[in-house]
Amino acid sequence: MIKVGIVGYGNLGRGVCLAVDKAKDMECVGVFTRRAPESLKLAVDFPVYSIHDLRNFKGEIDVLLLCGGSATDLPNTTAELLKDFNTVDSFDTHAKIPEYFAKLDRVAKENGTLSAISIGWDPGLFSIMRMLLGAVLPDGKDYTFWGKGVSQGHSDAIRRIKGVKNGIQYTIPKDEALESVRSGLNPNLSTREKHLRECFVAVEDGEDKQEIESQIKNMPNYFADYDTIVNFVTDEEVKEMQKKLSHGGFVFRSGKTTEENSHLVEFSLKLDSNPEFTASVLTAYARAVARLKKEGKTGCLTVFDIPLSYLSPNPNEFLREHLL
Amino acid sequence: MIKVGIVGYGNLGRGVCLAVDKAKDMECVGVFTRRAPESLKLAVDFPVYSIHDLRNFKGEIDVLLLCGGSATDLPNTTAELLKDFNTVDSFDTHAKIPEYFAKLDRVAKENGTLSAISIGWDPGLFSIMRMLLGAVLPDGKDYTFWGKGVSQGHSDAIRRIKGVKNGIQYTIPKDEALESVRSGLNPNLSTREKHLRECFVAVEDGEDKQEIESQIKNMPNYFADYDTIVNFVTDEEVKEMQKKLSHGGFVFRSGKTTEENSHLVEFSLKLDSNPEFTASVLTAYARAVARLKKEGKTGCLTVFDIPLSYLSPNPNEFLREHLL
Repeated sequence: MIKVGIVGYGNLGRGVCLAVDKAKDMECVGVFTRRAPESLKLAVDFPVYSIHDLRNFKGEIDVLLLCGGSATDLPNTTAELLKDFNTVDSFDTHAKIPEYFAKLDRVAKENGTLSAISIGWDPGLFSIMRMLLGAVLPDGKDYTFWGKGVSQGHSDAIRRIKGVKNGIQYTIPKDEALESVRSGLNPNLSTREKHLRECFVAVEDGEDKQEIESQIKNMPNYFADYDTIVNFVTDEEVKEMQKKLSHGGFVFRSGKTTEENSHLVEFSLKLDSNPEFTASVLTAYARAVARLKKEGKTGCLTVFDIPLSYLSPNPNEFLREHLL
Repeated sequence: MIKVGIVGYGNLGRGVCLAVDKAKDMECVGVFTRRAPESLKLAVDFPVYSIHDLRNFKGEIDVLLLCGGSATDLPNTTAELLKDFNTVDSFDTHAKIPEYFAKLDRVAKENGTLSAISIGWDPGLFSIMRMLLGAVLPDGKDYTFWGKGVSQGHSDAIRRIKGVKNGIQYTIPKDEALESVRSGLNPNLSTREKHLRECFVAVEDGEDKQEIESQIKNMPNYFADYDTIVNFVTDEEVKEMQKKLSHGGFVFRSGKTTEENSHLVEFSLKLDSNPEFTASVLTAYARAVARLKKEGKTGCLTVFDIPLSYLSPNPNEFLREHLL
């Protein structure tokens, strides 16, 4: 049995609990939280401890699944945890991955531990597709689309506007863009052509909706480069939408082997729950970390470095016989 | 530069030549053929040798790309070649993979060589999807569909019927089946419900078409379990169809993380040229074999065992920065 610890119990941590509970080769040593342990009501029957007690479990946990956020939690805590534990995380600030990797690789090698970073669906499964298909069809182009799903960053940006009570933003791939990629034309698509942004906004009493709509639509970096739809709704309606955590997306690789012969590869996800699916990927890679560490591997790894067989609880003979 | 040898110059060998020619980190030492070398007109400017001269190149080739068939070529020759060379092949007789693997693994380990087998899209990319997505969504079901594309085995079966001059068979996934999988209903689909078989047949003068159609439709193993459409056409029309080598297919994984939350993953290929795409996959894995061998790896590997970064000519830093 692979002994895991789960750090953090937000949406992702909850999903990891569910995934670990389904994994027949894993047992959960504990969920570690910054909150008062007795205040947590878990979805599954795992022990809960304070994060301050984590170090007492050194040597008793094969791999820690880190379920904190990429903005501050992971950059501030992973390196420290890696001194005593092997880890897997879903660090998803694309631009900062090289720096994060370098730091963790050094710490892990110094301490004889192993870390897998940026595990999930993007980065994660989508990265696998971009890399694998780019290697197979070098003379080609790849396209990534996200959605339909909530963008947390854009929702936050709306809520920071004065007069906005609550808001949520959906990123939606444009059908015309998807179809033009599927047609094999290798189009050059602008930001505006790829995705639509749809906002649902609740405003404070007496605020000027037209002014707020204009502020949203013209916000640089977030909305100015997109076609944006703004709908005004009640706070209750926004809250109802915030309960739904569905998401998805597409990766395409379109390429040719000769002037005449083109090929199109499409990978898509439709997810009822973004955090539960991300947690499922994280849990499969936790298995790989535990197994690779047992073989003596140390340092930092990404989805590009880990042979896929390590993700499965089934032996290689089974995989060759039934899935190859 | 990775030095490769290409064994066989049929459709697959031709595709490998094109792919190796596009790979900036590879050079082709030679194409090795059973035919008279001077009789071959290659699509690219590589040297051609008799297969009998291959052994003279021992030590000068990092990896051999084997482009023979799975029925007799590969089972009869790979083990022997593996005594002197590292190899990569597209062995696709699913039922015989475990036996083929065991034999090659033994020979490769005895001789300090490395072999990657069953590389292509099925087995190959489709196997990766089945395995990876099964590990991520263990509580689920996968579906593989092939087509629209020619089945060589079924075309051969038609041509063996007395009175048939020429014939070709297309395997076609049924739209209703694809849609029922996409709907997330996890349907149990019979053989007949998944694929349609469409045949184009040219008959000898004076033969009974109705009788031939009935023989095709009732042929056990090949057609009896399917809805089969038989079209009678001229030999010229069949020959025209035989020039097109397009194919494709779908892998789905549909699974749930809780009772309420389901997820659907879809991977699909639309290929203008089945052999050229298969050759592109084979060439990327040849790169991995050369690199893994350099690191001291020996034995037999499949797509499940090879970290994906080994397929790319780009360094890991580049992959992390641009594709993760």
